[in-house]
Amino acid sequence: MQQIDTLLDARWIIPVEPAGAVLEHHSLALHDGQILDLLPSEQARQRYQPREHHQFPSHALIPGLINTHTHAAMTLFRGLADDLPLMTWLNDHIWPAEGAWVNPEFVHDGSELAIAEMLRGGTTCFSDMYFFPDITARAAASSGIRATIGLIMIDFPTAWAAHPDEYLDKGLKLHDSYRHHPLIRTAFAPHAPYTVSDAPLSRIQTLAEELDIPIHIHVHETASEIEQSLQAHHQRPLARLQQLGLLSPRLLAVHMTQLTHEEISQLAVSGSHVIHCPESNLKLASGFCPVHALDQAGVNVALGTDGAASNNDLDMFSEMRTCALLAKAVAGDASAVSAETALRMATLNGARALGIDDITGSLRPGKAADVVAVDLGDIETQPLYHPISQLVYATGRDKVSDVWVAGVQLLAGRQLTRLDSQQLRQRAELWRARIAASDENHQHHQP
Amino acid sequence: MQQIDTLLDARWIIPVEPAGAVLEHHSLALHDGQILDLLPSEQARQRYQPREHHQFPSHALIPGLINTHTHAAMTLFRGLADDLPLMTWLNDHIWPAEGAWVNPEFVHDGSELAIAEMLRGGTTCFSDMYFFPDITARAAASSGIRATIGLIMIDFPTAWAAHPDEYLDKGLKLHDSYRHHPLIRTAFAPHAPYTVSDAPLSRIQTLAEELDIPIHIHVHETASEIEQSLQAHHQRPLARLQQLGLLSPRLLAVHMTQLTHEEISQLAVSGSHVIHCPESNLKLASGFCPVHALDQAGVNVALGTDGAASNNDLDMFSEMRTCALLAKAVAGDASAVSAETALRMATLNGARALGIDDITGSLRPGKAADVVAVDLGDIETQPLYHPISQLVYATGRDKVSDVWVAGVQLLAGRQLTRLDSQQLRQRAELWRARIAASDENHQHHQP
Repeated sequence: MQQIDTLLDARWIIPVEPAGAVLEHHSLALHDGQILDLLPSEQARQRYQPREHHQFPSHALIPGLINTHTHAAMTLFRGLADDLPLMTWLNDHIWPAEGAWVNPEFVHDGSELAIAEMLRGGTTCFSDMYFFPDITARAAASSGIRATIGLIMIDFPTAWAAHPDEYLDKGLKLHDSYRHHPLIRTAFAPHAPYTVSDAPLSRIQTLAEELDIPIHIHVHETASEIEQSLQAHHQRPLARLQQLGLLSPRLLAVHMTQLTHEEISQLAVSGSHVIHCPESNLKLASGFCPVHALDQAGVNVALGTDGAASNNDLDMFSEMRTCALLAKAVAGDASAVSAETALRMATLNGARALGIDDITGSLRPGKAADVVAVDLGDIETQPLYHPISQLVYATGRDKVSDVWVAGVQLLAGRQLTRLDSQQLRQRAELWRARIAASDENHQHHQP
Repeated sequence: MQQIDTLLDARWIIPVEPAGAVLEHHSLALHDGQILDLLPSEQARQRYQPREHHQFPSHALIPGLINTHTHAAMTLFRGLADDLPLMTWLNDHIWPAEGAWVNPEFVHDGSELAIAEMLRGGTTCFSDMYFFPDITARAAASSGIRATIGLIMIDFPTAWAAHPDEYLDKGLKLHDSYRHHPLIRTAFAPHAPYTVSDAPLSRIQTLAEELDIPIHIHVHETASEIEQSLQAHHQRPLARLQQLGLLSPRLLAVHMTQLTHEEISQLAVSGSHVIHCPESNLKLASGFCPVHALDQAGVNVALGTDGAASNNDLDMFSEMRTCALLAKAVAGDASAVSAETALRMATLNGARALGIDDITGSLRPGKAADVVAVDLGDIETQPLYHPISQLVYATGRDKVSDVWVAGVQLLAGRQLTRLDSQQLRQRAELWRARIAASDENHQHHQP
C-alpha cells in the first residue's frame, strides 16, 4: 500500500484528455499537489492508503475551469449600471467610478470577492487584466487560486502608472517578483490596439519573447473599433498587430467578434489563441464571434467571463453553456460546438492559451491536482444519459461541491476554506455604499 | 389587528406592477390564497396578525415566474441526444423514443419531474403542449402548481389520438373536466401550421372563441418551415393563420424566429402574443427572434423554456438572462430588453398571453398569492446596487428559497412540500435505463 495525500472516488471522472472520455467508478490519487494516478476505484482502494479519502457517489470530477479573460477587481462594479448604450455606460458610470475608486484597497477587495466567486463556481485559474496587478497577484497568491496576472499597458495615465515606460517598469518588476511562484504567472496585457501605440506594442513583443510569457489583449471587440483603425492606421487592428509581429502562439486575442475568412486563416497559421467572452459580447451588443469557424480552422478557442461589470457574473458554467448554445445559432448548425467542445474550451484550451497545458487543464497523471467535484444527483440533472451533456446544458455552478488547486482543498462542501465569506460580503457592502453615492452624482441616466 | 393566513416580510419586494418599482422593507399579506395587502413592514406588524410569519432579510419577493411554452413530459428525454443536426436528432432519437415510450405512465412521471424542477426554480405557472394532456393536467393539479394545459392537435395518429376528430373530442372532454378548477386551465394546442391542416385549424378558431380560451401553436420556428409553406400553400405560415382568422389576442405564437416588418405590424395590430424561447432557438440553430423590435412595436412578448429535450432545463432565470443578453446583440443595441423588461416578460407578459393577468403575473392586492422568495445575500450577488439587475444578470434559480402558489407553500427552504424528490429521482433513473437501452438500438450517431 502506497501512502498518498488524497484519494477521490467518484461516480464519474471526465478527464478532458483523452477527448470525450467518461470514466465510471474511478478514482483520482493526489500527492504533493499533483495527480499521481487515475484508475478504477476498486484498484485504487487496494493500491493507495490516503491521508484524506473523499467519496463522490453522485458527482463528476472535472479539471478546474480556466477563466481566460477577466478584470477581477471590477466585481465591485457588478450591476452598477446595465442596459445602457456603450458610451453612456462608459462615460457616465464606469469611467467616473474607476477614476474615483480604483486604488489598492479597491483592487484588493474586488479581487478577493472575484476569487471567492470563481472558486465557488469551479474556476481554479484565471487570467486577469486590470490596474494594480501587484495587488491582484497578492490576493490570488494568498487565496491559493492559480492565476496569470496581466501586466497592464495603456497609453494614458491612470492611478497605476503615468506613461508607457512606467507601466512597463512596474510590470517587469511584478514579473520578477513572481518568477518562482508555484501558482502565479504573468502575461503582458496591453489594453487594446486602439489604446496602445505601436512603440509600446513592439517593445512588449520583444520582451514577451525574452521572458517567454503571453500577450493578453482585447482585439476586434466591436465594428467601430475596426472603423476607427481604418481611419487612424489605414488597416484593420489585426493587420496592425501582425505587422508589429504580435501574431504568434503567445497571443491571446480577446473578443474577436469581427473576423474575415482571411483573418481566421492568419490566426490559425500563426498559432494565435482566441479568447471568447460570449456573455459580455451579447450584453454590450458587440457582435458574434464565429467560434465554430475558428474551431474548424484549427484555432485554439478558450473562454472568459470578462469583468462582472459587463456580464454580470464570473460563472464559467454559464459561459460554457452560452458558448455552446450561441455558436450553433451563429453557425446555423445544431451540431456546432458540442458540449464536449465547450468543456474543452473552458479547461484544456484555456491552459493551452496561457502556455500551462503541461501543468493544468486536464486530469492527467503528472499534472497539478486542479480538480472540481460537481454533484449531478439532484432533480435538475435527472435523468442522466450523458454526464458531459448534463455538465454543460443542465448543471449550474451551484452544484460545485468541492475544489482543489494544486492539491489544496479551497472549497469543501460549498464552503470556502481560506476566504471568509462573511467578511467579503461586509466589505462589498461598504464599497457599495460609497460607490452608489458617487455614481448618483455622475450619472445622467438612471438604469 | 386583522387575522390573516400569512405575512411575508422582505428586504425587497419587486411587484412588477407598477413597472420598475422596488419596495424596501415591505410585506405581503396573504389571505384565502390571495394577496390582501402590500405595505411597509412596520405598518404590517401593527395591522395584521398572521397565522404564519416569514422573514426574508436578504431576499427579494417577486411574482411567480410563468413558463409560457414547454413540453413537461419530455423532461425524461433531457440530454438523451444533443449537438446533432435537427433531422438526425428527430429521426434517430426523439421520434423513435416518443414512439416507443410516450404513454400515460411516461407522461405522468415526466410531468411530475418537470413540475418539481419548475417549482424549485421559481416557476409557479406553466403552459404545456404534449400528448396525454389529461395526465399532465392531473399531475399539475395534484402538485398545486398553476397550469394552462394544451389540448394537442396534429394531423397524424399518435398514442393519444388517431385523427383530428379524436384529438378534438378528447381535448374538449378535458376542457370540460377542468372548467371549474381553481388552478388548471386549457388552451387549444395545434402543433404547428405544417402539421395541422386548414380544416382543424378553422374548427379550433371557432371553438376557441366559443370557449374563450387561447390557441397555443409553434409558428415560424425555422427558415425551412417558411420555405415549405411557400411551396405547399403559396404563402408564409403567418399569412395562412391570418387567412384562417387565427391572428387575435387569443393567439400564442411560439418561436417566431423569421419575421418581416409587415408581420411584426400584423402581430401588433391583431393583439397576438409572441412566446420567445431563446435557449431552444439557439440550441436547435433555429434563428433569432427579433424580441426588441416586437417589444418596441407593442407586441406582448412572453418567455418559455421549450421542452428539456432542446434546452436542456426548465430554468426561467436562465431564460430571462439569455433573453436580455441575446436581444441586445440581435438588436445591435446594449439598451434593448432591460433587466426590468426581461422580468416583465417572464411574469406579467406570460399572464397576459394566457389571459390570466387578472389573476397572476404581478404582486398586486386582489391577485392570487403566487410568490417567490429569492435570496440575494450570497457572494455571487454582491455588491448589490439594483435588485432587478441582480435577479436577471447575476442570480441563479438555486437562490429561490420559498414558493407559494395561490397562497399554498410548495417550496420551503428549497424543499418541495408536496412532491417527493427521492421518489422522482428513482423514477427518472428507471426511465433512463429503459430509454437509453432502446435509444442505443435506434441511433446511428453517438452524441
